[in-house]
Amino acid sequence: MITVLKPNTTAEQRDHLIHWLEGQDVQVHVSEGAEYTILGLVGDTAHIDMELLESLEIVQSVKRVSEPFKKCNRKFHPEDTVVDAGGVPIGGGHFAVIAGPCSVETRDQIIGIAESVKASGAKLLRGGAFKPRTSPYDFQGLHATGLELLSEAKKETGLPIVSEIMDMRDLDLFQDVDVIQVGARNMQNFELLKGLGHTNKTILLKRGLANTLKELLMSAEYIMAGGNENVILCERGIRTYETYTRNTLDLSCVPVLHELSHLPVVVDPSHATGHSNLVPSMALAAAAAGADGIMVEVHNDPLHALCDGAQSLTPAQFDSLMQQMKRILEVVRP
Amino acid sequence: MITVLKPNTTAEQRDHLIHWLEGQDVQVHVSEGAEYTILGLVGDTAHIDMELLESLEIVQSVKRVSEPFKKCNRKFHPEDTVVDAGGVPIGGGHFAVIAGPCSVETRDQIIGIAESVKASGAKLLRGGAFKPRTSPYDFQGLHATGLELLSEAKKETGLPIVSEIMDMRDLDLFQDVDVIQVGARNMQNFELLKGLGHTNKTILLKRGLANTLKELLMSAEYIMAGGNENVILCERGIRTYETYTRNTLDLSCVPVLHELSHLPVVVDPSHATGHSNLVPSMALAAAAAGADGIMVEVHNDPLHALCDGAQSLTPAQFDSLMQQMKRILEVVRP
Amino acid sequence: MITVLKPNTTAEQRDHLIHWLEGQDVQVHVSEGAEYTILGLVGDTAHIDMELLESLEIVQSVKRVSEPFKKCNRKFHPEDTVVDAGGVPIGGGHFAVIAGPCSVETRDQIIGIAESVKASGAKLLRGGAFKPRTSPYDFQGLHATGLELLSEAKKETGLPIVSEIMDMRDLDLFQDVDVIQVGARNMQNFELLKGLGHTNKTILLKRGLANTLKELLMSAEYIMAGGNENVILCERGIRTYETYTRNTLDLSCVPVLHELSHLPVVVDPSHATGHSNLVPSMALAAAAAGADGIMVEVHNDPLHALCDGAQSLTPAQFDSLMQQMKRILEVVRP
Amino acid sequence: MITVLKPNTTAEQRDHLIHWLEGQDVQVHVSEGAEYTILGLVGDTAHIDMELLESLEIVQSVKRVSEPFKKCNRKFHPEDTVVDAGGVPIGGGHFAVIAGPCSVETRDQIIGIAESVKASGAKLLRGGAFKPRTSPYDFQGLHATGLELLSEAKKETGLPIVSEIMDMRDLDLFQDVDVIQVGARNMQNFELLKGLGHTNKTILLKRGLANTLKELLMSAEYIMAGGNENVILCERGIRTYETYTRNTLDLSCVPVLHELSHLPVVVDPSHATGHSNLVPSMALAAAAAGADGIMVEVHNDPLHALCDGAQSLTPAQFDSLMQQMKRILEVVRP
Repeated sequence: MITVLKPNTTAEQRDHLIHWLEGQDVQVHVSEGAEYTILGLVGDTAHIDMELLESLEIVQSVKRVSEPFKKCNRKFHPEDTVVDAGGVPIGGGHFAVIAGPCSVETRDQIIGIAESVKASGAKLLRGGAFKPRTSPYDFQGLHATGLELLSEAKKETGLPIVSEIMDMRDLDLFQDVDVIQVGARNMQNFELLKGLGHTNKTILLKRGLANTLKELLMSAEYIMAGGNENVILCERGIRTYETYTRNTLDLSCVPVLHELSHLPVVVDPSHATGHSNLVPSMALAAAAAGADGIMVEVHNDPLHALCDGAQSLTPAQFDSLMQQMKRILEVVRP
Repeated sequence: MITVLKPNTTAEQRDHLIHWLEGQDVQVHVSEGAEYTILGLVGDTAHIDMELLESLEIVQSVKRVSEPFKKCNRKFHPEDTVVDAGGVPIGGGHFAVIAGPCSVETRDQIIGIAESVKASGAKLLRGGAFKPRTSPYDFQGLHATGLELLSEAKKETGLPIVSEIMDMRDLDLFQDVDVIQVGARNMQNFELLKGLGHTNKTILLKRGLANTLKELLMSAEYIMAGGNENVILCERGIRTYETYTRNTLDLSCVPVLHELSHLPVVVDPSHATGHSNLVPSMALAAAAAGADGIMVEVHNDPLHALCDGAQSLTPAQFDSLMQQMKRILEVVRP
Repeated sequence: MITVLKPNTTAEQRDHLIHWLEGQDVQVHVSEGAEYTILGLVGDTAHIDMELLESLEIVQSVKRVSEPFKKCNRKFHPEDTVVDAGGVPIGGGHFAVIAGPCSVETRDQIIGIAESVKASGAKLLRGGAFKPRTSPYDFQGLHATGLELLSEAKKETGLPIVSEIMDMRDLDLFQDVDVIQVGARNMQNFELLKGLGHTNKTILLKRGLANTLKELLMSAEYIMAGGNENVILCERGIRTYETYTRNTLDLSCVPVLHELSHLPVVVDPSHATGHSNLVPSMALAAAAAGADGIMVEVHNDPLHALCDGAQSLTPAQFDSLMQQMKRILEVVRP
Repeated sequence: MITVLKPNTTAEQRDHLIHWLEGQDVQVHVSEGAEYTILGLVGDTAHIDMELLESLEIVQSVKRVSEPFKKCNRKFHPEDTVVDAGGVPIGGGHFAVIAGPCSVETRDQIIGIAESVKASGAKLLRGGAFKPRTSPYDFQGLHATGLELLSEAKKETGLPIVSEIMDMRDLDLFQDVDVIQVGARNMQNFELLKGLGHTNKTILLKRGLANTLKELLMSAEYIMAGGNENVILCERGIRTYETYTRNTLDLSCVPVLHELSHLPVVVDPSHATGHSNLVPSMALAAAAAGADGIMVEVHNDPLHALCDGAQSLTPAQFDSLMQQMKRILEVVRP
C-alpha cells in the first residue's frame, strides 16, 4: 500500500502517522521527494482501513498495490479451483450448464423442464422458490413448496439443484439444495454472506447491479473467510444508461476474474439481457470468452403459450444452443 | 397501463391475452390502429406483473401510466406525511438535522459528540453499531455495546437516536433506538424490509447505490405494506462514472420524491461526497432544494486528531454550517 | 407514437393539441379511457419532436412505437447491407478483421505491421494520423504525414486503409483512405456527420462512451440522410462505474443492432478493454456473438520493447488469435 | 507522478524505463521496497503519456500526484478568475443569471423574452441558433438569422448574448455574440476547442454527458493552451441509470471545480432536469452550493400556450425564482 502525504505535512504529523501505522503491524518505508513524501506500507495490509487512511487531513492519496482479498486471490492459489456442485465439477477446465425456469410453478412444470434440459446436456437444474421482486405486490415464489418440488425433480432426473436464498432464517429448507444462490440484490448483504460462510454448501454468488469486480471478490471473501471455500462467481449484467437491454452484460469480467481469482466464473445471459432472442448469442460469447459455465432460463408450459417470448428459451431453442455451444467449447477448451 | 401489441398479432392471440388480463381483475379497452393494437388496462393494475407482460411474444411494449406504488403515493395521500422520530417531527414543514459519528467508539466519544451537536441545533443523534463494510477484515462496529452507548448518550442529552440494522435477528437490540436505518446496500433486502414493516419503529430508508427513485419508493412500499407507515426516505449519492466524489449526490431527487410521494426526504451529504470539505455546500444545497432534513457525520476526538480530514465535520465546522442552514431555511421555508 | 394525456386535460386543450399534430401530417386516433385519454399517432412520425411533445403541460407521457430512424432501419430494408470497404465486403455474412497500430509512427513501423497482419489474415489496415487526446499536451498524431505513410503501406501490401477524421476541413487529406473513422468522442458531432453524409466514402462510426444504441443509429441516420449509405457501426466500450477495464464492452449490442438495423457491426476490443491480455477473449466473444468484424490494435517495434504490454497485441499474439477466430467463425457462420 | 513496478521486473528493464523517462525531462527517484519498486517522477510531468506508461509490461500502476492541467489549475493561480462576459463579470464573487429561450424563433419572441428576463434581473440573454439534435429530422435552428435576431435583442435591451457554436466554419457569424457556448456533445471535439482557443471570445464550456470533472478541466485547458483564458465551466447534468430526470445534475461539482480550478462555474438546471417544475429548486440549490451563475430557459409565447409545461420557465415563474435567489445569495455570498 502506498500513501502519499500532502506537501505541507509537518515532520511531527508524518511521524504520528507512521507510528499509528506501525502499531497495526505493517512496516513503513519512507521516501522523501522534492514535493511529496511517499510511505510504502509492507506486510499484511489487508486489515488497514483504506478509507480511513485516505480521509486523513495530511494524506493526499492512498493506493493499494496488493489486493485486499486473500482467500479468493489467485496470487496465493495459482491453480483454478474446481468447485463441486452436487457432484458436478465447475472450473479448472470443467464447463457446466445450469438451466431451468425462473420460478418453480408446479410439479409437472419442473420435472418436465428438468427432463428436457437434461436431455439437451444441462448438468444442473435451477428454479426459484424465493423470488426477490421489486414490488411487494408481485409473486414472491412458492417458498418451502417450491424447494420440495425441486427436490422431486432432482430425484426424478438426478440433476443437482440450484436455488436462491434470501434470508438465513430459511437455511433449514435448503438441506437438499446442492448450490445456494445469492442474488444480485443481496451481494452486499454481509450478514447473509457471513451466515453462508459457516455452511458447507456450494454458493453461487451473483454480481450486484452496480458492483465492481473487486467488490464481488470481497463478497466472495466474506463467505470464504467463514471457512466455506466453495464459491462460484456469476456475472448477470450491470446497470448502465442503456435501456434496450435490461442490464449490460459485462463479458470482459470473465478474463479479469480469472486473472484476479482462482474461483470459477459462470455467466447468466437471461437476466442480463432480459430478451430470449439475445440469449443464445450471449451464451456463445460467454463460452468463447472463457466462462466456466452458463446459467440459462428455460421454460416450457403449453398451457401458457403466451410466455414463449420471455427471457426464457423454449426447450427446442435451448437444445439448439447446446449444439453450437459444444462446438465453441471445442475451439476454446481443446 | 398501456400495452401495445405487435403488428402481426392474430385476433386469437389478442383475445387470449385480453382474457388473461381480465382474469386479473382489470378492465381492458381495445384501440385498433392502422398498424398497432393498443390495450388500455384500467383498474388496480399494481399487481400486474409488468415484466412478464412485456416478455410476451405478441407484446411490443408496456407502459405504466399510474405508478405501481400505492401507500407512499402522493396521489392517494395529497398531504405531506409528518413522521415522528422519537418525538421529533420530520416532514410537512418540519426540518430536522441528524448528526453524529460514523461509528460509535466509546462512551466519552458518543456523549461528547451528542452534547456538542445538540448545542449546535441537531435534533437527532446518529451512530453506527452495525457497520456494513466491503471487506470482512474491516471494523464491523461494536454491535450490542454500541447500541448501549447510544442509549446512554440519549439519556444524557435527550436526543432521539438513529442507528442501522443489518439483520432482523438483531431487532431486539434496537428497542431503545428511535429511528432504524436501512443502509444503501440493503435497500432491496426485501426480507429485512418486510420484517421492519411489521414493527412500529420509524424507518430511515437509504437509496441504494444504483437504484432508481421508483425502486426506492417500491422499497418504502414493502415496509408500508406490512403496516408500518413511518418511513423517511434518504438520498445518499448514487454510483456513476465520476471518481472525484465517492458517489454523485442526486439532489434533484428531492423535488421528484416530493412530487411522487408524501413521505419526508432527508439528504446525507457526508456519505455521498466522502469529503468533509464538500459537505457544508451540499448540506446547504439540500436545504435550498427543499429537503426535510439532513444527516451529517460529526466527529470530535482529540486523541485521534488524524481523523480530522475525514468525511466527518468537526463540531466547529458543524456549528458554522448550522448557522448558515438556519438562514437558508428562512428563505425556502418562510 | 402514443401520447397519453393527463387526467385533468380539458376537451379544448385536447382538441388544440390534436389540431397541432394533424398540422404536422400525422393522423390522430383518440381513445378515451376512464382516467386517461390516449392519442395514437399514425403516419410519418419521425419528424415529430418527441421531447417537445413530452414537455407539454397536458401530456403525461409519449412513447414511440416505431423508431425515429428510417434509412438504417431493418424494417424498411430487411436484408443485411454489405458495405464495400476498399474492395473488402463487410456485413451480410462477410466477416473482416481490421488491424494495425494505434498511431502511425514511421514508414518502417506501418509497413512492417501491415505486412505482418496481412500474413495473419487481416483484410484492412488501421492507423491513426489524427488522434483525439484528452490532454492538449499529449501526442496528437502525424496528420498529413501519417496519412501518406498509410498510403504507402496500402501500396506495398494492397490492404485498404482505415483512419480517423476529426474535422471536415481535413477531408482532402483523406482521398486515398478507404474507410473514414468517426471516433467515439465525435459520434454526436453532427456537423461532421452531415459533412461525411455528402461524401461517397465508407464511414466506420464508433459508438460514443455514453450513447445509447438508438443514438448510435440516429447518428448513422445523419450520415445516410445526406446520401451516403456506406456506414459500418462499431462498438468500442461504454463508460460505466467499473474501473478495472478502461470501458465496459457491451457485446449484447451486436444482436440488438442486427435486429434494429441492416448495417454491419464491428467490435473494437482493444479500446474497450485497454489491456492486451483481455483482447483475444473479447475478440473471440465478439465473433461468437455474431459481429461482422473486429478491429484490433497490433504493434511491433523491437526498439520500443517497453510497449509490449499495451492494449496492442504483438504480431505473434494476433496470429494466434486469428487461428482461433477462424474456428469460431466456422461454428457461428457455417 | 508515481509509478509502481511489478515484482518480477529485472534491473535492466527498470533502468531502461528510467532512462526513457529521464529523456523526457523528468527526474526519477527510485524507492526499492521488499516487493515493489516505486519510481517517483518529479518535474513537468504533464506531458508524460500516462496511458502509455500504464500499459508497459513491467508497470503495475501509475498515479498522478499533480494534475495534468496547468492553466486552469488553482494551484498555479490561487485567486478566482473573473471572466468578462460582454461587460458582465462572472466569478470571484460575481454571480450572473443567464436566461432565454432554448431556440431563437422570431424577432418578437426573442425581444419579448429579453425584456422580460432583464426586468427580473437576468444579466445575459441566451438563445440557440445552431441546435444539436439527436435526429437529423428535428429542427436544427435558424442559423445566421437566429444570430441576427439575437443581436437585435441585444441592441434593444443591452443584454450581452450567449449562443452555441457547432463548427469553426461558422465562427464569422458569431462576431456580435459575447459568450460562445460549446455544447455537451462537443466537449471533446478537440478541433473546435483548439479553434476557439485562438479567438478572444469568452467561452462557456458545458460538461459532456459522461465526462469526468478532470476531463472537463482538460477541455478547458485545450482552449486556454491556445491563449484564450476566458473560460466559464458549466454543469448541465450527467447521464446515469436514473430515468425520471433527463440527466442527473451533479451539484457537488461546484465545490470540487472551485477547489481544482480558478475558473467560474455556472449551472444549467433546465437541461439537467428536463422538467420546468424541478428547475427552481435546483437553481436555488446551485446558488446555495456556491455556483457563480445559473443558466435558465425562459419562454413566453402566448401563441403556443401548449409549450408552458416544457423545461422552460414562464417569465412569471422566472421572476419568482429570482426573488428567492437573491435571498439565498445574501446568505451564501454575504
